[in-house]
Amino acid sequence: MSRNFRAIVVGAGVIGRVHVNALRLNNVDVASVIASSPVRGREAADELGVSRWDPDLQTALASTDADAVHIATPNVFHHGMAVAALEAGKHVICEKPLTRTTAEAADLYARTRDSGQVHAICFNNRFYPLVQEVAARQRAGDLGRVFVIRVSVVDDGLWASTDGGWRLDPAVGGESIVTATTGSHLFDLASLVVGSRVKSVSADFATVHPVRTPDGETEIHVDGEDVANILVRFESGARGAVALSSVSAGHPYRVRFEIDAANNGVTWDSESSGELWIGHRDRPNEVLWPDPRVFSPGALAYADNPGSYREGFLDSFRLLFRDIYEQIGRDRADRPSPTFPTFREGYAGMLVQQAVIDSARGGRWVDVDWADLV
Amino acid sequence: MSRNFRAIVVGAGVIGRVHVNALRLNNVDVASVIASSPVRGREAADELGVSRWDPDLQTALASTDADAVHIATPNVFHHGMAVAALEAGKHVICEKPLTRTTAEAADLYARTRDSGQVHAICFNNRFYPLVQEVAARQRAGDLGRVFVIRVSVVDDGLWASTDGGWRLDPAVGGESIVTATTGSHLFDLASLVVGSRVKSVSADFATVHPVRTPDGETEIHVDGEDVANILVRFESGARGAVALSSVSAGHPYRVRFEIDAANNGVTWDSESSGELWIGHRDRPNEVLWPDPRVFSPGALAYADNPGSYREGFLDSFRLLFRDIYEQIGRDRADRPSPTFPTFREGYAGMLVQQAVIDSARGGRWVDVDWADLV
Amino acid sequence: MSRNFRAIVVGAGVIGRVHVNALRLNNVDVASVIASSPVRGREAADELGVSRWDPDLQTALASTDADAVHIATPNVFHHGMAVAALEAGKHVICEKPLTRTTAEAADLYARTRDSGQVHAICFNNRFYPLVQEVAARQRAGDLGRVFVIRVSVVDDGLWASTDGGWRLDPAVGGESIVTATTGSHLFDLASLVVGSRVKSVSADFATVHPVRTPDGETEIHVDGEDVANILVRFESGARGAVALSSVSAGHPYRVRFEIDAANNGVTWDSESSGELWIGHRDRPNEVLWPDPRVFSPGALAYADNPGSYREGFLDSFRLLFRDIYEQIGRDRADRPSPTFPTFREGYAGMLVQQAVIDSARGGRWVDVDWADLV
Amino acid sequence: MSRNFRAIVVGAGVIGRVHVNALRLNNVDVASVIASSPVRGREAADELGVSRWDPDLQTALASTDADAVHIATPNVFHHGMAVAALEAGKHVICEKPLTRTTAEAADLYARTRDSGQVHAICFNNRFYPLVQEVAARQRAGDLGRVFVIRVSVVDDGLWASTDGGWRLDPAVGGESIVTATTGSHLFDLASLVVGSRVKSVSADFATVHPVRTPDGETEIHVDGEDVANILVRFESGARGAVALSSVSAGHPYRVRFEIDAANNGVTWDSESSGELWIGHRDRPNEVLWPDPRVFSPGALAYADNPGSYREGFLDSFRLLFRDIYEQIGRDRADRPSPTFPTFREGYAGMLVQQAVIDSARGGRWVDVDWADLV
Repeated sequence: MSRNFRAIVVGAGVIGRVHVNALRLNNVDVASVIASSPVRGREAADELGVSRWDPDLQTALASTDADAVHIATPNVFHHGMAVAALEAGKHVICEKPLTRTTAEAADLYARTRDSGQVHAICFNNRFYPLVQEVAARQRAGDLGRVFVIRVSVVDDGLWASTDGGWRLDPAVGGESIVTATTGSHLFDLASLVVGSRVKSVSADFATVHPVRTPDGETEIHVDGEDVANILVRFESGARGAVALSSVSAGHPYRVRFEIDAANNGVTWDSESSGELWIGHRDRPNEVLWPDPRVFSPGALAYADNPGSYREGFLDSFRLLFRDIYEQIGRDRADRPSPTFPTFREGYAGMLVQQAVIDSARGGRWVDVDWADLV
Repeated sequence: MSRNFRAIVVGAGVIGRVHVNALRLNNVDVASVIASSPVRGREAADELGVSRWDPDLQTALASTDADAVHIATPNVFHHGMAVAALEAGKHVICEKPLTRTTAEAADLYARTRDSGQVHAICFNNRFYPLVQEVAARQRAGDLGRVFVIRVSVVDDGLWASTDGGWRLDPAVGGESIVTATTGSHLFDLASLVVGSRVKSVSADFATVHPVRTPDGETEIHVDGEDVANILVRFESGARGAVALSSVSAGHPYRVRFEIDAANNGVTWDSESSGELWIGHRDRPNEVLWPDPRVFSPGALAYADNPGSYREGFLDSFRLLFRDIYEQIGRDRADRPSPTFPTFREGYAGMLVQQAVIDSARGGRWVDVDWADLV
Repeated sequence: MSRNFRAIVVGAGVIGRVHVNALRLNNVDVASVIASSPVRGREAADELGVSRWDPDLQTALASTDADAVHIATPNVFHHGMAVAALEAGKHVICEKPLTRTTAEAADLYARTRDSGQVHAICFNNRFYPLVQEVAARQRAGDLGRVFVIRVSVVDDGLWASTDGGWRLDPAVGGESIVTATTGSHLFDLASLVVGSRVKSVSADFATVHPVRTPDGETEIHVDGEDVANILVRFESGARGAVALSSVSAGHPYRVRFEIDAANNGVTWDSESSGELWIGHRDRPNEVLWPDPRVFSPGALAYADNPGSYREGFLDSFRLLFRDIYEQIGRDRADRPSPTFPTFREGYAGMLVQQAVIDSARGGRWVDVDWADLV
Repeated sequence: MSRNFRAIVVGAGVIGRVHVNALRLNNVDVASVIASSPVRGREAADELGVSRWDPDLQTALASTDADAVHIATPNVFHHGMAVAALEAGKHVICEKPLTRTTAEAADLYARTRDSGQVHAICFNNRFYPLVQEVAARQRAGDLGRVFVIRVSVVDDGLWASTDGGWRLDPAVGGESIVTATTGSHLFDLASLVVGSRVKSVSADFATVHPVRTPDGETEIHVDGEDVANILVRFESGARGAVALSSVSAGHPYRVRFEIDAANNGVTWDSESSGELWIGHRDRPNEVLWPDPRVFSPGALAYADNPGSYREGFLDSFRLLFRDIYEQIGRDRADRPSPTFPTFREGYAGMLVQQAVIDSARGGRWVDVDWADLV
């Protein structure tokens, strides 16, 4: 057996810890962890059992022989850290959205197009086994023409007017709240299962709590949207009804899509992520679970447990990282098209996001500007 | 016991038969049934065990002493039949949408405003016991401010390109297909549970099968929408994401709404109509069933069975007609505000529908024109 | 159209009212209603809109020209009323359990074997459309050999120690509580879908609340079982695990069965009575809803609504009575084997009940004594 | 940070791999892996990225400085390997059932009672977060008196007559099939949530396929039970209805329990392991998800992810091993009562199993012989 790959993980919040766990499941060593301060870095290393922490990415890059850098920080840091990691010759795995602005995303896309480095964005929803099954069926033509997708992400993170966080600060999170956060996942997922890019959008934003008091006292004024409803037209002709809400009591986090297609209907819901519903008209509906015995050939690699073993959230990262590190493990010349979303998809997401923001502001339909995504 | 009320039922299709059954459950006698032809009228009377059929409404009005007329015909006939029934001094219960055009609806509204006759439109979804529970909670302020509603009606009636029917013919069904049909239910329901009228809409229509061959051979060209996605702003400030689809394999007919509100979330789905989900953030979510032991005071009248007894589709009509005939049974002077939707709500539905159609055509936001609904 | 059939309904409690409603849906006239006292009889007739009430069955039999008598009273009255009705030449429809004792059941069985009168017992669970689908598949051999059935009825009627009622009094309800009440439904249902009679049973009874205070004060001592768990061997070789509980908070009333068979698994649950689950190993599981488009030929008659129309509890009685009155409507010589359970099945249920009681008392396996059910 | 713990994993089948993954999530190094043959050991080490494999446990014990040994082999090897590991001074984590015979279990129990070594049995179902929530509520008295539990484990592993495996061979798996396999999980789980040991049992075994042809040709004769239904009386007075089936098409593996208790009902189902149903009679039912915001104090340690993060099968092993290695990490004198099941619970399981087997053979109630479990 060759040596294990080694990764630097920047960010030690909830999602940074998920990266550490998912790396371990793929037998990748965590070379160093970097948190928002040295104190928290030391604590995180201790809690996670990681042998090294660094005060910043530059130090970590200089002091370790890591193969890859994982960026799980607030959005504002994504671009700078990705550039630093790329310039240090590392592979880069970045959380979503790719960047805070479209310009930054364009830059990262340009830097990676011919660099030979592996780059990925953590649209982990793709890697629930049953989502891969839907994507495989779509690619194989099993769904037939997709007529319409109804898709939503709802969560409770901003439900109360006392809820706060860095996502509310445009300087850190960018000008959009839910569209950037849960919306980036949603649009990536929708395009995957519809099998088409977004052509144009008509968006309606609401700020349910324009004044928030996260500390119970100090008022902060919020411009960004905590609710977004969006009409979508895909290039394929499919239509979409998109709903995003971070003020949804009862749903810690739920992604759901429903597809009406020529051959059948499809529904998947992350709150029951181990069930895939296939709708028929003249014969009984079907429900699949993640089991190699009922999977399509194109998704079999994602049913890597027996059906008796139900996957969770962590497995979506495990499978995403598995695919990424398999790619890293190949010689550059031998790398097939990635099976995971890359900075190209991250940039695409930023272009859709921009169109959504422009539409909501203008109260009109806006086309996504795909011109630069050659 | 006073004599039973007597009703004429026009229309002997699936929904006409539901009217007959729901009347019998309310101990209302069916005085006559009228179908699309004398032959079918005779057959329907026979099958349904109704003692009399008539070739047309005029004959029935002249030959029976009915108290009320139920109109369950294609849309094109609603206005004329309602006028005839009203002029004959009958109470009128009409299927949705109220009419084929807004002008017809305005006329019916005008005719009934001071006529003293009871008039109703069959938005039966309101009368699922658990929908009444949501409405009661909304009225009582238990939900708090409603932030957003996600609501859809999906069915499989037009899924295949060989599906046809009178709803596709603008001369019979009107210029809209799903917006008029399932959309009229949806907007009524949404306004009820949100507690606000629609202010403006932005709609996207699709015609999945612009050419259909209902007989397998002859092509008919369809302009109307079999899919409609709609953004909604309510007068209260609440937002809505609406999806309508009649091309949804796997769902014979499903109405679902999800509300995000200040006090909790709410979800109801007609495919599991005996469950009402109430979402919380800091305590467990709740699930209610139709049971007087767990109902709000304002909805208790609609939990008229013990919890062990699950209601079905027919019960929604049973309860709707119960309320209507209770009103009919009162002296005109003693009638309280109706607990059921009237021609006013039918006209309101037509005004919303018109705004949706205009928005889809214009590709822009359109305000509902409430000026005439004084 | 010939004249409507006419029925006397004895019993005006919750279930008596269900009979009245289900009769009306079948266009059967209620000739008279009889309650537990003249005062309540008058009230019931008034509330239900029935034109006549009688102080007792004899008066009703003498004063009306009813075709049939429906018995929906406490168990102790079943035998006497059925005898009176039979002697008056009426068809008889009786609630479950057939009688309070096996001897009474044997007598009713003997009286009806050659009488030419239609007799039925209200095992309404059979008449949920999807239960008919399971039975049709079983009869057709589609399930293959049935290996095992897990089946339960749980309700909350006796959950609190303050709950009371006539079922607790052996003089009125008989010596068994849950086995007689919900158990009679369960065993009938199990035999139907397994396709075999019960051969032997091993039962465990518990009395969760041996002392109850229904009025909050006076203690009554209860010997009967409010919980019963039962092992079952069917004549076919199939095995059963049966659970009955009337102390189940959260379930107003739930019947559920799960079958493991050679060709697939089957699950039906009355709390989601519009879904039938079919389990497979090497292909996706299936979910049916009540829709003629997905029903077996042998069950098509019970999918008499389109799939968009979900049936409720009342529909199970509607379909049961439909089949009964169709039989009544036929000349005696032309009557096929009944599609509904008769006094034969009622007697069979009493024989199984007796074996269960004997087993629980003796702490041993007991065979059902089928000798007299020739 | 102190050095990582190190573990030897014996067994490289599906469940051995789960051990490796769950160890990694707890930052425990896998010192060596041992499979059923050297060839498979090398392959397993390679696939799993484990740096060392050994041909047998003795070699591994002699060649590594492991702290603990994980035994994930067929039952016949459990006793010998546990003895070897204990004699080598290692902590031991063993798969269920503890041994093949009660005598072997008694021996292991005796060896570990005062040895100071940590010992554990992998009843992982306990470690679903929501199962811990039920156990915490039970311990805290929140459920009130438990009246009855209905509990089942159903799977499809032996559904077809062509299914085989070592569990069918009494020499390897022991004389019982489903009772030993899924039944050992079930009884441990039931006692945990009921809060009482089993007092007596009445069991019914079936061998659905007494002749099997695993290779499609050679007949093997099977005596063991592939279906077991069992009546249970707990020492607390609670009753149980237990069903085990390995011939259940449609369920790769499902554990479900339903509790009727004095304060509420409780249902948990491994197929929707992220939902805990709490049943009430006079207020709405509740549904919990694994979220620290809704967990009891006594279970908070098992809600170590935010509610937005749904746990899977792997997490149950992660949390089980977390508790075990925390115990290992404490000085012997400082170790509290284990929060995980030990060889004591493993031995208890064998005693219950013996009573079940004796009952099925004798066709009578059998008391569990707790005399030796002092």
